[in-house]
Amino acid sequence: MSELSVDHLLGIKYLNPQDIQLIFETADHFKEVINRPIKKVPSLRDITIANLFFENSTRTKLSFELAEKRLSADVINFSSAQSSVKKGETLIDTVNNILSMKVDMVVMRHPNPGAGIFLSKHVKASIVNAGDGAHEHPTQALLDSYSIRERLGDVHGKKVVIVGDILHSRVALSNIFALKLQGAEVMVCGPKTLIPKYIGELGVKVETNLRAALNWCDVANMLRVQNERMDINYFPSTREYTQQFGVDKALLDSLNKEIVIMHPGPINRGVEITSDVADSKQAIILDQVQNGVAIRMAVIYLLASKIKQ
Amino acid sequence: MSELSVDHLLGIKYLNPQDIQLIFETADHFKEVINRPIKKVPSLRDITIANLFFENSTRTKLSFELAEKRLSADVINFSSAQSSVKKGETLIDTVNNILSMKVDMVVMRHPNPGAGIFLSKHVKASIVNAGDGAHEHPTQALLDSYSIRERLGDVHGKKVVIVGDILHSRVALSNIFALKLQGAEVMVCGPKTLIPKYIGELGVKVETNLRAALNWCDVANMLRVQNERMDINYFPSTREYTQQFGVDKALLDSLNKEIVIMHPGPINRGVEITSDVADSKQAIILDQVQNGVAIRMAVIYLLASKIKQ
Amino acid sequence: MSELSVDHLLGIKYLNPQDIQLIFETADHFKEVINRPIKKVPSLRDITIANLFFENSTRTKLSFELAEKRLSADVINFSSAQSSVKKGETLIDTVNNILSMKVDMVVMRHPNPGAGIFLSKHVKASIVNAGDGAHEHPTQALLDSYSIRERLGDVHGKKVVIVGDILHSRVALSNIFALKLQGAEVMVCGPKTLIPKYIGELGVKVETNLRAALNWCDVANMLRVQNERMDINYFPSTREYTQQFGVDKALLDSLNKEIVIMHPGPINRGVEITSDVADSKQAIILDQVQNGVAIRMAVIYLLASKIKQ
Repeated sequence: MSELSVDHLLGIKYLNPQDIQLIFETADHFKEVINRPIKKVPSLRDITIANLFFENSTRTKLSFELAEKRLSADVINFSSAQSSVKKGETLIDTVNNILSMKVDMVVMRHPNPGAGIFLSKHVKASIVNAGDGAHEHPTQALLDSYSIRERLGDVHGKKVVIVGDILHSRVALSNIFALKLQGAEVMVCGPKTLIPKYIGELGVKVETNLRAALNWCDVANMLRVQNERMDINYFPSTREYTQQFGVDKALLDSLNKEIVIMHPGPINRGVEITSDVADSKQAIILDQVQNGVAIRMAVIYLLASKIKQ
Repeated sequence: MSELSVDHLLGIKYLNPQDIQLIFETADHFKEVINRPIKKVPSLRDITIANLFFENSTRTKLSFELAEKRLSADVINFSSAQSSVKKGETLIDTVNNILSMKVDMVVMRHPNPGAGIFLSKHVKASIVNAGDGAHEHPTQALLDSYSIRERLGDVHGKKVVIVGDILHSRVALSNIFALKLQGAEVMVCGPKTLIPKYIGELGVKVETNLRAALNWCDVANMLRVQNERMDINYFPSTREYTQQFGVDKALLDSLNKEIVIMHPGPINRGVEITSDVADSKQAIILDQVQNGVAIRMAVIYLLASKIKQ
Repeated sequence: MSELSVDHLLGIKYLNPQDIQLIFETADHFKEVINRPIKKVPSLRDITIANLFFENSTRTKLSFELAEKRLSADVINFSSAQSSVKKGETLIDTVNNILSMKVDMVVMRHPNPGAGIFLSKHVKASIVNAGDGAHEHPTQALLDSYSIRERLGDVHGKKVVIVGDILHSRVALSNIFALKLQGAEVMVCGPKTLIPKYIGELGVKVETNLRAALNWCDVANMLRVQNERMDINYFPSTREYTQQFGVDKALLDSLNKEIVIMHPGPINRGVEITSDVADSKQAIILDQVQNGVAIRMAVIYLLASKIKQ
């Protein structure tokens, strides 16, 4: 039987192409399950999962919770607002305490890059990184690639542009790793100040003109503008950002082909993309959300299989 | 088989008398279930319900959660404190995202009147309004009527006075609709400034003298005083409110009959009603709470039956 | 069949030695259960438990929640942040409302000493005290004794010192009661200002020199330093506390025997104990956490058995 090459999902950069293939095939099965009337399988009745969210996150947390419940795992939730972390406890102590209660897997979001990696070296449990600072957000990249594969048949050979604040985005970084691993061509597009200097080392094209980028690509993944970043150090204003890097229907229709529009959500309608773009048939934004549950079920299921061995 | 005339529970004003009858008969069954040692039925194993609370609410949320769990539905909770709504996402985007995760029903509390109605026109899911601003709180009105029926045998022909801040109360409005629909006579009683001008159009009597109101009625539903409303625009002070509109045991005993006392909770003891009134046999306040779970099970069960068709 | 002498777990001081023995034997069974692949038993499918936390608590709440889920009870959570308590409702009204929804057991943490006792006299439900102010924290004391029994074979005749802020500690008080009840010798050690004046009445030795205390004992239970207490009224500073009452490896190794180190968590590493002490084989801190789930399963199971009679 096939299995993952890793015991944790810490980042896309630790996966190989066969891992991604296995996750996608497993997600195909679970996608079929969650479209049945009874959307559950009893597979993980013997697994307890702790969701540790040291940063707020509505949709990622809900998506993981649903994935876990549909696998029949026992779920406990922990968020920093209620946490003993505030009482000065170290991360390892917090997690070891939770694991002493016989928890098999930890899904963690943390503001510090590398928090999951650090943890995986110090505690006995399978770790799933649900976003660690500006570092990686592997399940997001997996569901993004899975959604491209679903719409276009394959990721290999496709041209994908990631538009927006590349510098601060774990979504961008995980997507670059995932797309390259599957043989896609990748471009980033955004204000120069929001493109990291090491980008060339990742084998990625850079473009600062949005129209040129859209003319090149098959798929545009429009990152969310984080208003708190739009300060004088990076970019003059959200309004100017929209003028240069926002996509509206007129721009889309002026291209000589039909490209696929993606967005990790939540959307700032009228900022990164206008409402008619978000709601158009070219957009697969809600497919991404739906696929997120199937992808997370697949990742958790495959990691749990390794625990049970 | 009987079914509801509606696909959503947005407000009492969209129901007909047969709907209320069907809900009550279904609640009779579930009330029997929750008094058994095993208080659960497996009816909704195939239904996922999202509780979206954009306003705090302890007891309504707990009551819905218990109702859902006792129907064996899968439940996910979402409250505004953790919400991407804060990140500028629109209500429809938030809810569509949640529905893309294959959620069948949404129970929503929202500060804006009409939020549920708006949503029902834009998303594919059954919507239950758990309170929308000062507009409606239909499950509260249903459990109130159900509790009157339980105590007095029938709602038809009964005289019910609603006492307090009618102007800002969704409980009052939904109760008026529900009671009228079932053929009760309805009176409102409170300070003139807290009675809305359109009240006459609803076919409701108005009384500003509490003793007169109590002498007239079979049932008094004592609304909670919201201290934040007791400002100079509406009423001089909570103390004066209590003097004119509070019910104590002496007042109750001075009536020439035994009336039923209701309260939607939470009680301000010593403000709307004194402790000896709240704890007396005439009060059915805890019956209301208990019936709330059965009524919500009935509403969710009946709406889910329509989804499954 | 054996049963508890009490209907509630309000404090260790209401238990007898047979109760503790029964809880430990029941916990032995559940400890075996939670080390199986499927860590659940269907015992309490017919019991609904409300966790009412009027004070924040990560680990105690998680531990109770896991214990309840592994017994297959239905669980509803209520924390003060979302509570109608803020709307001026009395404790009894809040709890009676929750109980009207057919809740069988209440696990409550409350800042007021005696809150659980008060409640048990006024509502119909089994009450488990999960910490009431500086009064008692009975499940903590039970899991502490259980962990001593596990490591040393028995509690009877063992010498246990509790080190730290005895004055404000419910953990200390419950531990003193539990240890005395089982025939252990108990000493408290800490700054004079943090040892209560009534301590002599409890049949407990007092020592202000840490080395002397450690030379005497078989087990040292190191209480957490609560920084907010370290003010001028009680003690000069955390730093001075550590110098006089903190345990490091050098101090441990200088003793002429190997003592057992306990800590209720969360640990301030480098304050009460250093990291090498916390992570040493003499420390049973993570065993305490693991045993906490088994002890809470036992307490809930035994109280539920009395409800079902």
